[in-house]
Amino acid sequence: MKLIESIKEFGGFLNRYTHYSVISQCEMTFSVYLPPQAKTQSVPALYWLSGLTCTDDNVRTKAGAQRYAAELGLALIMPDTSPRGDKVPDEPERYDLGQGAGFYVNATQAPWDENYQMYDYVIRELPELLEANLPLIAGKKSISGHSMGGHGALVCALKNPGAYQSVSAFSPICHPIECAWGQGCFTAYLGEDQMTWQAYDAVSLIEAGASVSDILIDQGTDDEFLTGGQLLPETLQTACQNAGIPLQLRHQEGYDHSYHFIASFIGEHMAYHAKALR
Amino acid sequence: MKLIESIKEFGGFLNRYTHYSVISQCEMTFSVYLPPQAKTQSVPALYWLSGLTCTDDNVRTKAGAQRYAAELGLALIMPDTSPRGDKVPDEPERYDLGQGAGFYVNATQAPWDENYQMYDYVIRELPELLEANLPLIAGKKSISGHSMGGHGALVCALKNPGAYQSVSAFSPICHPIECAWGQGCFTAYLGEDQMTWQAYDAVSLIEAGASVSDILIDQGTDDEFLTGGQLLPETLQTACQNAGIPLQLRHQEGYDHSYHFIASFIGEHMAYHAKALR
Repeated sequence: MKLIESIKEFGGFLNRYTHYSVISQCEMTFSVYLPPQAKTQSVPALYWLSGLTCTDDNVRTKAGAQRYAAELGLALIMPDTSPRGDKVPDEPERYDLGQGAGFYVNATQAPWDENYQMYDYVIRELPELLEANLPLIAGKKSISGHSMGGHGALVCALKNPGAYQSVSAFSPICHPIECAWGQGCFTAYLGEDQMTWQAYDAVSLIEAGASVSDILIDQGTDDEFLTGGQLLPETLQTACQNAGIPLQLRHQEGYDHSYHFIASFIGEHMAYHAKALR
Repeated sequence: MKLIESIKEFGGFLNRYTHYSVISQCEMTFSVYLPPQAKTQSVPALYWLSGLTCTDDNVRTKAGAQRYAAELGLALIMPDTSPRGDKVPDEPERYDLGQGAGFYVNATQAPWDENYQMYDYVIRELPELLEANLPLIAGKKSISGHSMGGHGALVCALKNPGAYQSVSAFSPICHPIECAWGQGCFTAYLGEDQMTWQAYDAVSLIEAGASVSDILIDQGTDDEFLTGGQLLPETLQTACQNAGIPLQLRHQEGYDHSYHFIASFIGEHMAYHAKALR
């Protein structure tokens, strides 16, 4: 991995790296915020999965998370949302398929299957790379994300018991097989057989027995994608109730889908993760 | 003034407005963060003047200031950096002249003089508009800014004794008549007679007797524009020493010129202003 930018912030460093991803078969870019504590000791990590159209830059610029990371002694890991580059398949006229819309699955269908392996990238390749090269405590990690990234965080945690000490999400796509965004991407990446989709659907995973110790979710009540039927938090709530998984689903009155909403509550999410990582 | 966007954040509202500016002779856009306290009472205001190339959007997205504004009960006023629009003169191939580079002066030279009256806009037209239409305590205001906007904040405070309860700046252009950015804009907006430039130069104003009760400045030591000679904080330090103006000029080791630097210290600046506004 190659350090391409390093910016001092809150006494730590906001770094950006590139590396050749064997899983993605392309050059990938990601950012890591290393808190001041990382100068003298290894620290736990919070992985943040971003939403449709984002790169690693949105959260590091807009969420205000670095302040809390510095206070809590957490590294913040910010991967991209898909493979990138001229040689990577894309649908340039669509924001919700192809580059910027990897949906955190391992694609099985051409032309996507060669590069779009974001699930393995996030759960395995990136942590192995980072734990080998940065002052991170091996295996001490939690995961969160926004919208498509909230879906990704839930799925990564549910499919890998014990790998993440805690999981939270902002406005997650809870049940992608039942919403337009998910159906579009899953058809392209996973094919027409909807049974294969369930492996990347939080509600289906819980219904099939996957579990985590608890989940924290914030959802704005004025979120256009909530009312548009893309997020479906009520389906996750029902699944968690039936499975006995403690879910804190907080309906935040008047908030929308933007990073201004995330900024308002990211501090509480980071405190939640820091407690689990202690 | 017309509300064109309202986003809930930290319990308050981040609003964006447009209005026809009589002084600027064009439609102007600005943002205001109203903290939760403004629902039931009038609040003091902190004006933030942004730097070259910025609009009202940069600070509201990147600085993390709304969190502190909500905690402290301050409104945050974020004007644009110049007049805008197809009918407003511009130098589209330059980032440091014309639209996005108003430099907070009243231009006297054609073609700029018709619209580029940012000094009067910031000190008079905008506060009058806002105090008449929003829950702000009339006359209770402070001012801060970044780079070109740090210059603007210093000049506005120095030229208007008592109008601002406090002034601070990040990486300000302290002595524009002695740096390339200032010389370029002042020549265009104010003409060849350098005596007229001194009216918008913080160091010259202090040398001519202008004063404020104290000044807080943060300056990163790894700021490319510091080493490039655009900022010249040492000249302000000398002028303040000679004039007996208490200046806290904090050299922040390893920080650059970006909003990541601003985010790291904006909380201390806002506490400084809140104390003066109490």
